[in-house]
Amino acid sequence: MLRLGPLAAAGRLLPAGPRLEPPRPAGGRVSFLRCWPPRLPGPVGDGRPLSQQVRAAADSAGGGGGRGLALKTPKGTRDHPPAHVALRDHLLAAVVACFKRHGAAAIDTPVLELRETLMGKYGEDTKLIYELQDQGGELLALRYDLTVPFARYLAMNKITNMKRYHVAKVYRRDSPATTRGRYREFYQCDFDIAGQCDPMIPDAECLKIVHEILSDLQLGDFLIKVNDRRILNGVFAICGVPESKFITTCSTVDKLDKVPWEEVKSEMVEEKGLSPEAADYIGEYVQLHGGLDLVERLLQDPKLSQNKLAKEGLGDMKLLFEYLTLFGITGQISFDLSLARGLDYYTGVIFEAVLLQQENDHVEEPVSVGSVAGGGRYDGLVGMFDPKGRKVPCVGVSIGIERIFSILEQRVKAEMLYKKDPKLLKQLQYCEDTGIPLAAIVGEQELTDGVVKLRDVARREEVDIPREKLVDEIRRRLEP
Amino acid sequence: MLRLGPLAAAGRLLPAGPRLEPPRPAGGRVSFLRCWPPRLPGPVGDGRPLSQQVRAAADSAGGGGGRGLALKTPKGTRDHPPAHVALRDHLLAAVVACFKRHGAAAIDTPVLELRETLMGKYGEDTKLIYELQDQGGELLALRYDLTVPFARYLAMNKITNMKRYHVAKVYRRDSPATTRGRYREFYQCDFDIAGQCDPMIPDAECLKIVHEILSDLQLGDFLIKVNDRRILNGVFAICGVPESKFITTCSTVDKLDKVPWEEVKSEMVEEKGLSPEAADYIGEYVQLHGGLDLVERLLQDPKLSQNKLAKEGLGDMKLLFEYLTLFGITGQISFDLSLARGLDYYTGVIFEAVLLQQENDHVEEPVSVGSVAGGGRYDGLVGMFDPKGRKVPCVGVSIGIERIFSILEQRVKAEMLYKKDPKLLKQLQYCEDTGIPLAAIVGEQELTDGVVKLRDVARREEVDIPREKLVDEIRRRLEP
Repeated sequence: MLRLGPLAAAGRLLPAGPRLEPPRPAGGRVSFLRCWPPRLPGPVGDGRPLSQQVRAAADSAGGGGGRGLALKTPKGTRDHPPAHVALRDHLLAAVVACFKRHGAAAIDTPVLELRETLMGKYGEDTKLIYELQDQGGELLALRYDLTVPFARYLAMNKITNMKRYHVAKVYRRDSPATTRGRYREFYQCDFDIAGQCDPMIPDAECLKIVHEILSDLQLGDFLIKVNDRRILNGVFAICGVPESKFITTCSTVDKLDKVPWEEVKSEMVEEKGLSPEAADYIGEYVQLHGGLDLVERLLQDPKLSQNKLAKEGLGDMKLLFEYLTLFGITGQISFDLSLARGLDYYTGVIFEAVLLQQENDHVEEPVSVGSVAGGGRYDGLVGMFDPKGRKVPCVGVSIGIERIFSILEQRVKAEMLYKKDPKLLKQLQYCEDTGIPLAAIVGEQELTDGVVKLRDVARREEVDIPREKLVDEIRRRLEP
Repeated sequence: MLRLGPLAAAGRLLPAGPRLEPPRPAGGRVSFLRCWPPRLPGPVGDGRPLSQQVRAAADSAGGGGGRGLALKTPKGTRDHPPAHVALRDHLLAAVVACFKRHGAAAIDTPVLELRETLMGKYGEDTKLIYELQDQGGELLALRYDLTVPFARYLAMNKITNMKRYHVAKVYRRDSPATTRGRYREFYQCDFDIAGQCDPMIPDAECLKIVHEILSDLQLGDFLIKVNDRRILNGVFAICGVPESKFITTCSTVDKLDKVPWEEVKSEMVEEKGLSPEAADYIGEYVQLHGGLDLVERLLQDPKLSQNKLAKEGLGDMKLLFEYLTLFGITGQISFDLSLARGLDYYTGVIFEAVLLQQENDHVEEPVSVGSVAGGGRYDGLVGMFDPKGRKVPCVGVSIGIERIFSILEQRVKAEMLYKKDPKLLKQLQYCEDTGIPLAAIVGEQELTDGVVKLRDVARREEVDIPREKLVDEIRRRLEP
């Protein structure tokens, strides 16, 4: 029997459609059905494209509600049914195991922080902070990340050395894009090293950790982009950007992974007030990416090498690549000058991991999850909290477990269809129970004949389709 | 070597005070030092009673702060350092293991709920709900417990049968009493059974679970009080309380475990407007407690047995006791008519577990933790969310893990001082590191001599004290 990715939930079919229990509603499992439309009114849906129907069904599971009451979770949040929690726990355990392997200890901090603790740390993203109503007493907000609370914790307890991890939920009033795994409440898994260390050793360890976790979880090919805020600032300086515009220019550069250079340039010129020449000059640099060779080349760049900050950053980048070479992970590392990262508090090395493609090519609508990990060095953040401004250098990484979850969630749909020795009846029962519309069945006879048996699950009707026509047939059936 | 409870951190002492590293500040570990004052300015503190000094030290660890910034966590919340998290995880694992043993599956729900989801469910406690600022969009609040979100989850997903557990933080704008383990952010561990079952079977299982967990954690003697809202309402009815005042009278009765009957009575008469005769009549009932015998007696009570609700409640209570007898746990169960529980949503059996005493008699200021578990039957809550008002009967229990933690925290101070074969130097180092002021050392020689060697940790001075004078000497030294 072959598996055809999430569209296949099948086995060798008995000649007569077996008697099955009537399908149960799939209400509680909508989150597992992102690719699979839940049971629809008619046998082939209500005439809208499938993706719309799925969304509508998900909305109605979450919407409507009792006696005038909105029966839903807040926008951008979701419940996690047992299968979800089990997968998440499994995933978190793998991440935590890696953190522990690298010698970190867990801490926990409150979900609530004083509002003033969070202010002035996140740049433009400050507007995404959830604030609590003033009900008397302190003004509070929900934490936006785990990094600022960690810095507050270090300063408050006068800790100057610590390797800690923290796995907890954070809150952002962002535009949710739940199909891409972007929620307003989501888990972060942070690993940070605080304290004075020899240059680039903890930074290299953070990258090693990302590499280990993404490899362990078998998420397919990935790339870890690295850059350094000092290099970027050096580039801005030699291109004539005034220092006051460094951070805002950073935010614009950071969009290069989503929009083409032309758009980025026009934002620089029209919104950020840079001259077209400065923008073009920046463009020459920030479109560069490579490995150690690029670092070496930029170290020879007549202008950039004259800039103190850039030179420091490039020197450290070279050192970082040496450590990464020792770790044997440079194959997945790209020195990418377009990487800027939005947050204010980074001061040195920054990095971000992206998945390059879905492992499973048969997925029709691959979930684009964007970055799955990110982090960097923030040597000034703890000092912002210390009464005497004493700095504690820190570097850390955050694993975007929720986005990884979105990918694994899809896979699990396939995985969970099968027991070790699946009885066909059980598989078909599962198809009916969960509202899978079509099952593609490939047995020995089908292999010999070069066909696939396609079963309309709701109608319990089957027909042999030549393999080369299978995709078209499935598309045709799923269309309005 | 003897252990003298939390005041002892010792071993056999070498003749000369060994050279140790200078003590590190204990800032990050304040939460482990509730009984142990952290390192104080002078060798014997600043002249205030120890308890005050400890509190001040804890405040200063949390207060003050950098460049005009308040360097603290919000009122009633706290950070958890690594040792804390490790203990908590250990504790939660024991609770979860019990929940799983009883066949429950985990779910998770958002910390945020729509404000309207939470309104009208908690009676007088509604004022304790944290509300989020209106930043555009939906009006949100932080969950107050895990029960209402569970009911919302069931209704939203049209689930009519489920055994679930949920371990997560909840939020209450309560007056924090952190020394008694009462916080504004705290973990709850909930186990609930939803669905139509034969009477009292799931209710009995909830009590069994409380019994198992409190026994497993070896928290010393405990008592599980049980009552039934229907019995209470029956009592109120035959005492002439109008039905509109049942819930508010419940809240008053619920105070009987904290204040004497006279005060409860005066609240009933002066604040709730009952007649003194009605109050006295109620008093005759709600001061009763006992076992199956009391149930039998009340079933014979000429007035109460005429009340339909009370009769139902008493019948079920009898059945419950039969199951609890089969489980062999009636020794820790008390049918207590003063138990009322504050929340609106209970409709039948209610229960609450209290610890009877500290196992360790040597603790000078035993932490009074009050109730460590509570729950009951809420057959109407899911129906409040269902569009058609369809009811799903539910019963559940919540383990107050934070309060249990307060007790274990104290013990752990003693437990965590020792390795399997502790080197004396390491123990003394630990005393210095953590600011323990006195170490009582009991070796073979001291046993023979009937003395205890008392070491002033900061000054590294030791003196033999006759055992019978030890407590007085410790008191004297720790006094101003």
